[in-house]
Amino acid sequence: MAKTSYLSELPFTVPQLIAQKRDGLAIDADHLRSFVNAYVAEEVTDYQMAAFAMATYFQGMRPAETAALTLAMRDSGRVIDLSGVEGIKVDKHSTGGVGDKVSICLAPIVAACGVPVPMISGRGLGHTGGTLDKLEAIEGFRVDGSVKRFRKQLSKIGCSLFGQTGEIAPADRKLYALRDVTATVESIPLITASILSKKLAEGIDALVLDVKVGRGAFMKDQESARALAKSIVRVGKLAGKKVTAFLTRMDAPLGNTIGNAIETAEAFDVLHGEGPEDLIECTTLLAEEMLRLGGVAKTAAQARKLVQEAIASGAAVEKMQQIVAAQGGDPKVVAKPSKLIRGGTKRVPVLAAKSGFVGDIDALALGYVGVKIGAGRTRSDQSVDPDVGIVLKAKPGDAVEEGQPLAELIVRKKKHAAAVMDETVNAFTLSARKPKESPLRLETIRR
Amino acid sequence: MAKTSYLSELPFTVPQLIAQKRDGLAIDADHLRSFVNAYVAEEVTDYQMAAFAMATYFQGMRPAETAALTLAMRDSGRVIDLSGVEGIKVDKHSTGGVGDKVSICLAPIVAACGVPVPMISGRGLGHTGGTLDKLEAIEGFRVDGSVKRFRKQLSKIGCSLFGQTGEIAPADRKLYALRDVTATVESIPLITASILSKKLAEGIDALVLDVKVGRGAFMKDQESARALAKSIVRVGKLAGKKVTAFLTRMDAPLGNTIGNAIETAEAFDVLHGEGPEDLIECTTLLAEEMLRLGGVAKTAAQARKLVQEAIASGAAVEKMQQIVAAQGGDPKVVAKPSKLIRGGTKRVPVLAAKSGFVGDIDALALGYVGVKIGAGRTRSDQSVDPDVGIVLKAKPGDAVEEGQPLAELIVRKKKHAAAVMDETVNAFTLSARKPKESPLRLETIRR
Repeated sequence: MAKTSYLSELPFTVPQLIAQKRDGLAIDADHLRSFVNAYVAEEVTDYQMAAFAMATYFQGMRPAETAALTLAMRDSGRVIDLSGVEGIKVDKHSTGGVGDKVSICLAPIVAACGVPVPMISGRGLGHTGGTLDKLEAIEGFRVDGSVKRFRKQLSKIGCSLFGQTGEIAPADRKLYALRDVTATVESIPLITASILSKKLAEGIDALVLDVKVGRGAFMKDQESARALAKSIVRVGKLAGKKVTAFLTRMDAPLGNTIGNAIETAEAFDVLHGEGPEDLIECTTLLAEEMLRLGGVAKTAAQARKLVQEAIASGAAVEKMQQIVAAQGGDPKVVAKPSKLIRGGTKRVPVLAAKSGFVGDIDALALGYVGVKIGAGRTRSDQSVDPDVGIVLKAKPGDAVEEGQPLAELIVRKKKHAAAVMDETVNAFTLSARKPKESPLRLETIRR
Repeated sequence: MAKTSYLSELPFTVPQLIAQKRDGLAIDADHLRSFVNAYVAEEVTDYQMAAFAMATYFQGMRPAETAALTLAMRDSGRVIDLSGVEGIKVDKHSTGGVGDKVSICLAPIVAACGVPVPMISGRGLGHTGGTLDKLEAIEGFRVDGSVKRFRKQLSKIGCSLFGQTGEIAPADRKLYALRDVTATVESIPLITASILSKKLAEGIDALVLDVKVGRGAFMKDQESARALAKSIVRVGKLAGKKVTAFLTRMDAPLGNTIGNAIETAEAFDVLHGEGPEDLIECTTLLAEEMLRLGGVAKTAAQARKLVQEAIASGAAVEKMQQIVAAQGGDPKVVAKPSKLIRGGTKRVPVLAAKSGFVGDIDALALGYVGVKIGAGRTRSDQSVDPDVGIVLKAKPGDAVEEGQPLAELIVRKKKHAAAVMDETVNAFTLSARKPKESPLRLETIRR
């Protein structure tokens, strides 16, 4: 189609379309599609899209509109056809948190149980880490590759862990970058379209969504997290996909590590039946649902049994070894996760200033400590240091004595640790009484 | 100041400033000023300003914020210093209507009464005409010129009728063009800042505002017109100026003409004590207030007397002759307005299809008819034809017989008239009963 043709499909001007959204009227699916196509073709300017995004922030969208926007964004690029791959293809998406390395253990477990996992992940930004950055801590591991390779690996091994290519949902890439600099990120229909357009372009049949709630998450309160979960489940169904969403707590970091290599190593521990309890719990919760949606288990109990067997039998480890080998890494690191931890760093303990119970660990604060010591980035063009990070030595509910370590900072230079020491200590709340345990899962949303 | 320094004056990022407005928080005056300066310096992008404008559309601004925005926009360019010109300088602004040629008779009348009028006007766009286009129907009349000439003419003659130069409020020019294509025009704080920033940059001491209300006006209902008027009066006072606003009706066109040369000729008729009643009434209303604010009259009755004398004595005609001569035109056209009507056009009558009373004349529809026959423009880079237009032969309340003329179209080619004939006829509502007269002035707002 010629470059200047999308706007001619609209029966009104772009300012009129923006005004329609501004005035709270629904926009026709066809018109949204023309608008999105025109945006990618640069017939609609960034300033017009920014005004539209802000109007959407205030007026929202009806489910059918959000679905239309999602499908238009999906169709702005290549939609991978996985119909040639046997089985019900199921992916997982997390809205991102601190210490969230679940994808790295979840994908091989689910694939080992016979459900194909076509997973396209992202990079870290701000206080939240990214699966691609963590995987790249495996020497030689490649997250880029053609759609052909992605599909071939999925067929052969049952799992591909790739990064988003320029071909997938370019409208989302362009719109997301714009929203980031125009204060229009926090809009449920726009978040829905952003997440789902990419996932639908992967060619999935079903999706399990982990919406993190709390201080360390994108969604700070349960109500807005629920609204987002419901929106994605609803729009996913309108697009003909099975979608389940969980709301899970993200006040303290997930697991005991924040950083790239150490998080991947910790995820590998889970494949061996080890690793921290909260990480195992979160991984199992999502794996069970993926197996149910993938049709290999009917009940949660059946699914749990499959997960446990995949770990106990070594099938999960073997699956990850196949994935690492296929994507250019040395599969030996899966059997021996400590191999991922390279030297060249200093380890600096973070000590408790008084005795007490750890009540709370501020995931947001530690996420930013991670950024400051080089484990994360604040701009998408920055690189990350795979080898630095934070190891938690105490978790909520643990008792610590004055002078005992709360955490360990892994840094390139000791002065980096000194610069973040106060923030790190202050991220831990110590109290005289043992805090109540709070459940990881807050809600399950299936419709 | 170096080009990249404005953003460094902000204690937060631009997206955070946008989010502040989005979340309904007030923005500090200093921050708004840095933001506006950064926008003019292209440190803030158009897409960020578009998001800010849309957030402002929804959240509004407090009076102090609107004042700060107005002053920042005023100070984005040259602020003319008229302190060397004697007297209280008073200008008038109209929000624009169809057939609104008031400035052209108002300015010389007020100046003839001894109040200096430094008037900077705009061009027509869409269904509303512009004073500059009308003035340029006078052969040789120049609306451009340096600030020095503007001030010198004001000192000497008491009135300058110029166009906006690039030096005046560049932030407004840039922002207005952006709002026009992002559906963010209809925001009271943004309209306030746009109007007042330019007027304050003229160096005025006082302003009379004519807010048109009705179908042919920018403000369709009295409530939003009142809100705009109150906002401008309030912000004008915060800026230390005397401001009075009138809400006046704009359902039917003002006067009997729509077009450039014919409107200027009609405005000149008023200087001779002739011309249509509604135009005389509107001009007198605004003139009285300008004379009061300008300190040459204490009461409306005194002011009215001065206006009548200026017309009866020929002083108003003489003042306009001085202005036309000073700005490059032939002053003889003021004494004989029919000289403005050149040949080369066709006159096509618009006939009543039935007998009855003219109940209503749709100013908006006739405004667009004017655009279609060449008297107006839809894009700011188009030129207008000075010699075409519409002459009303019947006004609301008049009785017409079937086959009698309702109006006359002055066109370049007869086919132009044919193309708009139906629209023109349909703009007139004919009814069996004589409609009630409605007053021109709806409200006066002084605070």
